[in-house]
Amino acid sequence: MPTDTQTRRERLPLNGVDTPTLFTTLDVVKSQPELARFQFRARNRWQSGTLSETTIGTFSGAGGEHAHKTTFRVTADHPAVLVGEDRAPLPVEYLLHALVSCITGGIANIAAARGVVLTEVESTIEGDINLLGIFGMSKAVRNGYQGIRASFSIKGDAPAEKLQEIVEQSRARSAVFDVLTNGVPVSMSVNAQQAG
Amino acid sequence: MPTDTQTRRERLPLNGVDTPTLFTTLDVVKSQPELARFQFRARNRWQSGTLSETTIGTFSGAGGEHAHKTTFRVTADHPAVLVGEDRAPLPVEYLLHALVSCITGGIANIAAARGVVLTEVESTIEGDINLLGIFGMSKAVRNGYQGIRASFSIKGDAPAEKLQEIVEQSRARSAVFDVLTNGVPVSMSVNAQQAG
Repeated sequence: MPTDTQTRRERLPLNGVDTPTLFTTLDVVKSQPELARFQFRARNRWQSGTLSETTIGTFSGAGGEHAHKTTFRVTADHPAVLVGEDRAPLPVEYLLHALVSCITGGIANIAAARGVVLTEVESTIEGDINLLGIFGMSKAVRNGYQGIRASFSIKGDAPAEKLQEIVEQSRARSAVFDVLTNGVPVSMSVNAQQAG
Repeated sequence: MPTDTQTRRERLPLNGVDTPTLFTTLDVVKSQPELARFQFRARNRWQSGTLSETTIGTFSGAGGEHAHKTTFRVTADHPAVLVGEDRAPLPVEYLLHALVSCITGGIANIAAARGVVLTEVESTIEGDINLLGIFGMSKAVRNGYQGIRASFSIKGDAPAEKLQEIVEQSRARSAVFDVLTNGVPVSMSVNAQQAG
């Protein structure tokens, strides 16, 4: 039984997070660590110019196959200044979105687990890139971002120091932060066929 | 003046790519390398639970400030099995989207520049992740993907070997491939305020 206010609050849904289910899920995984293995997937199809569409429908994890509630469709394109038609964000802009949304989702979960009611979480993020690398005009310039800076603003019913700890804990456990800062092995295969 | 069929084809729009403008742009950057410096940005706002929305509106580059044709809005969430409401793709699924859409956009540009008519470009991508890291249940397990595999299928009016070279060239020049495989420095700041 909960013995203090703090513990009781932790066991109620908070910030739109189903905290009881969150704790139950963590307990189950603790006793069956193989349930923690997940695989995420996507399928992309080129449309025209630099526009392509990705569908995201299924994934595996928690010992089984899962389908998202709906099959998500997201597109990417290049802006006019990069000779595209600007019908969707750039792939490198999706990297920025992935990072801030990953840390923000984590903040909501961690705050709920710690019994902190959030009022606001906002962030801005920017990345510098020199396209001389992509254009093949300089071998000294990398293709990707040279640096990324994110700035978070968080408000809630806890002292500023505790709110800062929540953001820091989310960063320290963020899957996207890990991938972007440490890199990940990527393998690629190609099936090419003359046609048309 | 073009002296052979190949050169004439390269100077016409192809695959929905405005090839003449692409070549002109590259020529301009070659003579003014400082135009290649770009900065991309995004702003994220937490909504409820693990749902947040990112707006992508402006960027700088080519010596000035630019606004996208429209301000793009993209969301991210966690699926039910991860105690979310599954209203949008996961942040880590956006990483997969970013990678395949980046390489696919590059394929379209490179094929057009080489005078190759594309019939189809499709790809599937998957990433393995063990959530024991994120859950804080194992220090031996990283937070992010342990490996990513992408598989491209390309069809066009060129020999298979030439089509394969186009995919390889796009991978070699991909900003997202570079960031994901080599990592990037990310700095974060936090502004926390007790409220409510």
